[in-house]
Amino acid sequence: MIILFATCTTYQFPLSPSADGKAGQFDVRYAMFQDVHVMMAVGFGFLYTLLRRYAWSGVSINYLICAFVLQWALLCNGFWTNVAGRYFGTIPSTSFPSIPMTLEAFINADYTVATVLISFGALLGRLSPLQALFMSFWEVILCTANVAILNALGVSDIGGTMVIHVFGAAFGLAFAYVFGDDALRGKGNGEEKLGTSRHNGTFAMIGTLFLFCFWPSFNAALLTGDAQARAALNTTLSITASVAMSFAMSKAIHGGSRFDMEHIQNSTLAGGVAIGAVCDMLLNPGAAMATGAVAGIVSTYGFSYASPALKRLGLSDTCGIFDLHFVPGLIGGFASAIAAAVIDPQYGWSTAAIAHHFRGRGDRSALVQGGMQAAMTVISAVFGALGGGFIAAILRVAPKAGEHMDDRFYEDAGTWNVPNDAGEEQPEVEAVNQWKLVSEKKRLGELKRVCVCVCVCGLLDYDY
Amino acid sequence: MIILFATCTTYQFPLSPSADGKAGQFDVRYAMFQDVHVMMAVGFGFLYTLLRRYAWSGVSINYLICAFVLQWALLCNGFWTNVAGRYFGTIPSTSFPSIPMTLEAFINADYTVATVLISFGALLGRLSPLQALFMSFWEVILCTANVAILNALGVSDIGGTMVIHVFGAAFGLAFAYVFGDDALRGKGNGEEKLGTSRHNGTFAMIGTLFLFCFWPSFNAALLTGDAQARAALNTTLSITASVAMSFAMSKAIHGGSRFDMEHIQNSTLAGGVAIGAVCDMLLNPGAAMATGAVAGIVSTYGFSYASPALKRLGLSDTCGIFDLHFVPGLIGGFASAIAAAVIDPQYGWSTAAIAHHFRGRGDRSALVQGGMQAAMTVISAVFGALGGGFIAAILRVAPKAGEHMDDRFYEDAGTWNVPNDAGEEQPEVEAVNQWKLVSEKKRLGELKRVCVCVCVCGLLDYDY
Amino acid sequence: MIILFATCTTYQFPLSPSADGKAGQFDVRYAMFQDVHVMMAVGFGFLYTLLRRYAWSGVSINYLICAFVLQWALLCNGFWTNVAGRYFGTIPSTSFPSIPMTLEAFINADYTVATVLISFGALLGRLSPLQALFMSFWEVILCTANVAILNALGVSDIGGTMVIHVFGAAFGLAFAYVFGDDALRGKGNGEEKLGTSRHNGTFAMIGTLFLFCFWPSFNAALLTGDAQARAALNTTLSITASVAMSFAMSKAIHGGSRFDMEHIQNSTLAGGVAIGAVCDMLLNPGAAMATGAVAGIVSTYGFSYASPALKRLGLSDTCGIFDLHFVPGLIGGFASAIAAAVIDPQYGWSTAAIAHHFRGRGDRSALVQGGMQAAMTVISAVFGALGGGFIAAILRVAPKAGEHMDDRFYEDAGTWNVPNDAGEEQPEVEAVNQWKLVSEKKRLGELKRVCVCVCVCGLLDYDY
Repeated sequence: MIILFATCTTYQFPLSPSADGKAGQFDVRYAMFQDVHVMMAVGFGFLYTLLRRYAWSGVSINYLICAFVLQWALLCNGFWTNVAGRYFGTIPSTSFPSIPMTLEAFINADYTVATVLISFGALLGRLSPLQALFMSFWEVILCTANVAILNALGVSDIGGTMVIHVFGAAFGLAFAYVFGDDALRGKGNGEEKLGTSRHNGTFAMIGTLFLFCFWPSFNAALLTGDAQARAALNTTLSITASVAMSFAMSKAIHGGSRFDMEHIQNSTLAGGVAIGAVCDMLLNPGAAMATGAVAGIVSTYGFSYASPALKRLGLSDTCGIFDLHFVPGLIGGFASAIAAAVIDPQYGWSTAAIAHHFRGRGDRSALVQGGMQAAMTVISAVFGALGGGFIAAILRVAPKAGEHMDDRFYEDAGTWNVPNDAGEEQPEVEAVNQWKLVSEKKRLGELKRVCVCVCVCGLLDYDY
Repeated sequence: MIILFATCTTYQFPLSPSADGKAGQFDVRYAMFQDVHVMMAVGFGFLYTLLRRYAWSGVSINYLICAFVLQWALLCNGFWTNVAGRYFGTIPSTSFPSIPMTLEAFINADYTVATVLISFGALLGRLSPLQALFMSFWEVILCTANVAILNALGVSDIGGTMVIHVFGAAFGLAFAYVFGDDALRGKGNGEEKLGTSRHNGTFAMIGTLFLFCFWPSFNAALLTGDAQARAALNTTLSITASVAMSFAMSKAIHGGSRFDMEHIQNSTLAGGVAIGAVCDMLLNPGAAMATGAVAGIVSTYGFSYASPALKRLGLSDTCGIFDLHFVPGLIGGFASAIAAAVIDPQYGWSTAAIAHHFRGRGDRSALVQGGMQAAMTVISAVFGALGGGFIAAILRVAPKAGEHMDDRFYEDAGTWNVPNDAGEEQPEVEAVNQWKLVSEKKRLGELKRVCVCVCVCGLLDYDY
Repeated sequence: MIILFATCTTYQFPLSPSADGKAGQFDVRYAMFQDVHVMMAVGFGFLYTLLRRYAWSGVSINYLICAFVLQWALLCNGFWTNVAGRYFGTIPSTSFPSIPMTLEAFINADYTVATVLISFGALLGRLSPLQALFMSFWEVILCTANVAILNALGVSDIGGTMVIHVFGAAFGLAFAYVFGDDALRGKGNGEEKLGTSRHNGTFAMIGTLFLFCFWPSFNAALLTGDAQARAALNTTLSITASVAMSFAMSKAIHGGSRFDMEHIQNSTLAGGVAIGAVCDMLLNPGAAMATGAVAGIVSTYGFSYASPALKRLGLSDTCGIFDLHFVPGLIGGFASAIAAAVIDPQYGWSTAAIAHHFRGRGDRSALVQGGMQAAMTVISAVFGALGGGFIAAILRVAPKAGEHMDDRFYEDAGTWNVPNDAGEEQPEVEAVNQWKLVSEKKRLGELKRVCVCVCVCGLLDYDY
C-alpha cells in the first residue's frame, strides 16, 4: 500500500502543475460538494454500521475507501478525459494536458467514490480491508471508463443513475456472486451474525437521514442555474414520495402490523436513485413524485421477495444493493429514455435546447436520443457485471486470497480489539495475520499496479 | 395511505405545470435549505431517540412525518396563499394561479414540518404511525391557515416564534391533553419505560447539536442581505447565551452538584426559539444575548417545576415542548411586540423602512404594530390549542382508535422486531395488528381525505 | 457563572451598537461558517464520546465550551485587534472603535473555540465543568493575544496550524502536566475506565467523519477567490493522504494483522492539521499529498510510541493531542517556513504578490519570511506551554480546587444520573457537591473575573 501511494503521489507531480481551481461557480457548488462529501463519509459510513458485530469495520473501511478512491478517481477521470479528448480531436495529439484539479473534478471523484461504496455494500462483512482496496482500485478504472463512454455517446445522466447506481450495483453483485458464494456455502459461518441490534439500527439511521437530506445536492451538484434548482427540487419531491411509499409498503408486506427496519433504512432512498437521470429534465413535479413512488414500492418489495430469492441462488447481498440501487437505477434509466424520447412534443423545448442539453453531436432526433439513453443503461449494467465478475475471479485465483476471511465474516474481532460496554476485551480470537497469508497475492497485486503505473506514465509521456 | 398519496400525486399535476424554480437567491439560500432539512430529519429525529425503548420508532416516525408533511404543506401553503391573494385582490378572481415550486416554497414547507414535529414531541411514544399521520394531515391545514392570518395582519415573525413554536406547542399540548390523558391514568402502563439510557442519551445529543448548529440558518433562511446576516448572528448569540444559562441553572437546580441531561438536550435551545420573531429587528447583540439568557433560564426551570405540575394535571408531555417551545415562544412573541413598539425612537428606522419591514398596509404606527405582534402571539396559541384539542377529540371519537396503543406506550416492540445487542429477538409481544383494529377509523379517515381532496380540487377548478 | 455572564452581556452593550454584519462575502462564507460550527459542536463533541463511561460529560462539556468561548472570544479578539490597531497607528488614539460583529469575527471566534477544545482533549475526563470554564476563560485571552502577535509579525497561517493547533496543544499538554499528574500518580484511580467500548467507538467515528468532511471549510473559510479554492482542494488531498497512510501504518504497527481504533479516529486527521499553514500557498497537489502523508505516518507512530512514553513521564494525554495536533502542527509550521523561503524561485510569484500575501510590512525577503514563519511556530509552542502551565498552577494553588474530581476521573456518574440500557439508575455514588468544595476557589475566580472586567472596561473607556 505504501508503494502504491508513493507511486500515486509521485506521478501526480507532472500531471498537475497548475492546480489552482476555478473560482467561477465556487459558491453554491462548494456547499454541494460538502453535502456530497458528507453523504459519502457519514451517510454511507453509518448506513454500513447496521451489522451487530461489524460496525467498526463497516464505518472504517468505508472511510478508507473514501480517501483512497477520491485520489485514484481524480487521476483516472483525468486520464480517460484526455484519452477521449484526443480520440475526438478536441485535444491536439501533440500535447498531453495535465489533469486540472478543479472543484468539478473533485465532485466527479466523489461520484466515483459513491460507485465503489455501492459495490462494497453487497460485500459488507465479507471483504478484508486489503481486498476492499483491491476491488476499489480496479473498479475505479472501469467505472471512469464507463463515464467516458457515456460522455462519448452524448447521453444525459446528471445524477448518475446509470453510471453510478446501475454500474456500481451490477459490479458489486457480480463480484459478490463470483467471490462470496462458495465461501459461504462451504462453511456456512457468519450467517448468525448478519442481524442488527437496537443501537446498531439507530446508528444506521444516521446514515439514512444524511443521505435523505443531501440527495438533492448529489443530483444537482454539477448543474447551473434553473436546471440546478429543478434538479434539487425534483429530487426532494421524488425522495419524499419514496419515503412515504416505503413506509406504507413495509406495513402492507407485514400484514399491516409492523415496519421492517431494513426497508426504512434503504428503500426510502430509492426515489433519489431513480430520479437521478431525469431530475434536470422533468418540468412537472407530479412526474417526479410518481417516479419516486414507483421506485419506493418496487424497492420495498425487492427487499422482501427478490433478495431472499437471490440468496437461494447463491448471491449474498448484505445491504440489498440489488433492491436499492440496481432496480431503481434501471427504472430511472428507462424513465430517462422515455423522457428523452417524448421531450420534444410534450415540453416544447426547442431543438437547439435539446441538442445543447444532451451534448450529442449533430442533429440527433428525440427518439434516437431515447434509444441511446436506454442503451447506455444496458451498457452500464453489462459492463459493470462483466467487470465485477472478472475482478472477483482474479481475486479468487490469487493464491489463498479467497479464504482468509472465511471464519470471521460479519465480525469485527478479526480486525479490531472491540471492548464490550463493561470495557472487557472480547475473548481473543486466534491471530489470523491476514497480511502474511495474502503476502503472495499482495506482491502479485503490487507488481500489477507497478506495471499499470509504468504503462500509464508511458502513455502520458508519449506526446511530450 | 396509498389512496391518499395517489390523490396527492395526481392533483399536483394541474397545479404546477411550470415548476422551474427561481435561480436568483439560490446560492446561500440553498445551503440554508439544506441546513433546515438536516435540522428536521437529523436534529428532531435524533432528539426523539432519547427514550430507552422507543428510539427506532422515534426516529422513523419523525422521518415519515418529514416526508409526508413536506409534500402536503407545499399544497396547503399554496392553497392558502391563493385564497388570501384572491381575498385581498392581488390575484384577479377570474384566474387561479398554479402553486409555484420554488426554493422558498420548500423552505416554508420545512417550517410546517417543524411545527408538526414540535407537536409530535409532546406525544412521542403514545401515537401509532397512523395516528401521527392523521394528526399531521390536519395540523398542516390549520398551521398553514395560521400563517396566512399572520401575513394578512402584516405581522413580522421571520423565525416562526409564533406560527411555528407557539402554534405547534399549543396544538401538541392540547392534543396530548385530550388524547393521552385517560389512557394513561386508566392503565398506568408505560410510565416505567419513559427513561433514557446511556447510549440513548448520547444519540439524542446528535439531535441537539445539529439543532444548535443550524438554528441560525433556520431563522435567516428567508431573508436577504443585511437582515439575513443580522438574523444569523443574533440567533448565534442568543442560542449560545441560552446554552450557558441552561448549564448554570441545571447545576443550581440540583443543589450545585450535577447536570440534568434533559436540560442540556432541550433548554439549551430555548434561545433559538425566543429570538425567532426579533432576530432581524434587533440591532444590538446585547439584547439578543439577554433574550437568549432569559429563555434559557425560564426553560430550565420549566423542565424541573412546570412539567411535573402539568403531569399531575393530566397533561403528559414526553419531550417537554411546553418548556422548550411554548414558554420561550411566548417570551419571543412579546419581545417582538416590545421591539416593534419601540423600534421608532430607539433604532432610528425611517417610517418607510418600518412600513416595508412589517408589510402592514398603510400607515400603522409603531405602537399599533406592537399590539398586532402581541395579538398574533395570542392568536397562535389559542388557534393552536383549539385545533389540537378538536383533532384529538375526533381521533378519540373514532371507534377503537383511541386505545390500540395503550399496552405498548413508549415501546418499540409494537412496531418493530428489535434484537438486543447479542442479536437475540426480544421476547415476542402478542401481535396487535394495529391496522385491523383501526380499520374502521382508517376507512373513515380516507373517506374524509377523499372528500377534502374533492373539495380542494373543486375549489381550485372553480375559476378555470 | 451567572455573575460572569451578566457582566459579559452587560459590557457588550456599549461595544457593538451597529452589529449589522457585512453582506458582501456572505454567501459561500456562511456555508463554511456552518461547516466550522458543525466541526466544533458535533465533530469535537462526538470525538470526545470515546471513553466508555464519560460520553455524556465529554459531549456536554464540549457543548458548554463551544457556547462560552464563542461569546468570550468575540470580545477578546476585538480587544486585541483594537490594542494592535492603536499600537501600529491604524486606529487613531483618540477613539476606541466598537467591536464589529461580522461573520468573519464569528469565524475567528470559532477558531478560538477549536483552540480551547484541543487543549480540553488532553484533559478529557479529569476536569470538572467549572474547571473547564476556568481554563477556557484564561486560554481565550492568551490565545487571542497570540493571534495578535501573528498578525503583527505578518506571518501567514490561514488554517491556524500554529495559532490553533500548536498553541492549543502546547497549552493543553502543559496544563495537563502541571494539573493532572500527581492526582493520577497519588491515587491511581480511573485508569481502568480509560478504555472505549463498541458503541462509544462508533459514536466517536461520527466526530471523526465530520471533522474529515469539513476540514477543507475550516482552512478555507477566511480566504477569497482562487486562494480559497486552492486551500479547500489542497486540504482535501492532504487529509485523504493522511487517512490512507494512517490505515496502512496502523496495520504495520500491529504486525500487519489489525487496525487500532485510536489511530483511525485521530491520526487520519493529521493531514488537515499539517496543511493548515500552507494550504493557500502550495500550487502543486503532490506537495499537499506528501505533507498529509508524512503527518499521517508520524501521527500514527506517535500514538503507539510517543504517548505511552509521555505517560511514563507523568503527562497524561487522554485524546492524544500531542500526536494529533502538536507534532503535525510543528510539521506544518516548518513546512510553511520552507514554502515561504522558496516561494520566490519555485512558484514564480511576483514580489508584490508575496508582499501582499504575507502582509509583512515593507520589503521583507523570502528567506526572512521563512524565518518568521519558523519563529512564529516556536513562539506559539512556547507561549502556549508557558500559559498552560501557569494557569494550571493557579488552579492547583487555589484551595482544594485540585482534588475534587480525584475519585471520579473518566466517570459520568459524578455529574449525571446515567441509567443503563435496562433503565436502572447506576449505583448512586456519594454526593460530592463539587461546588461547595470549590466555593472558595470560585469566589476567588469571580473576584478575578470582575477585576479583569473592570480593567477591560476601564481600558475601553479610556478614549471616550
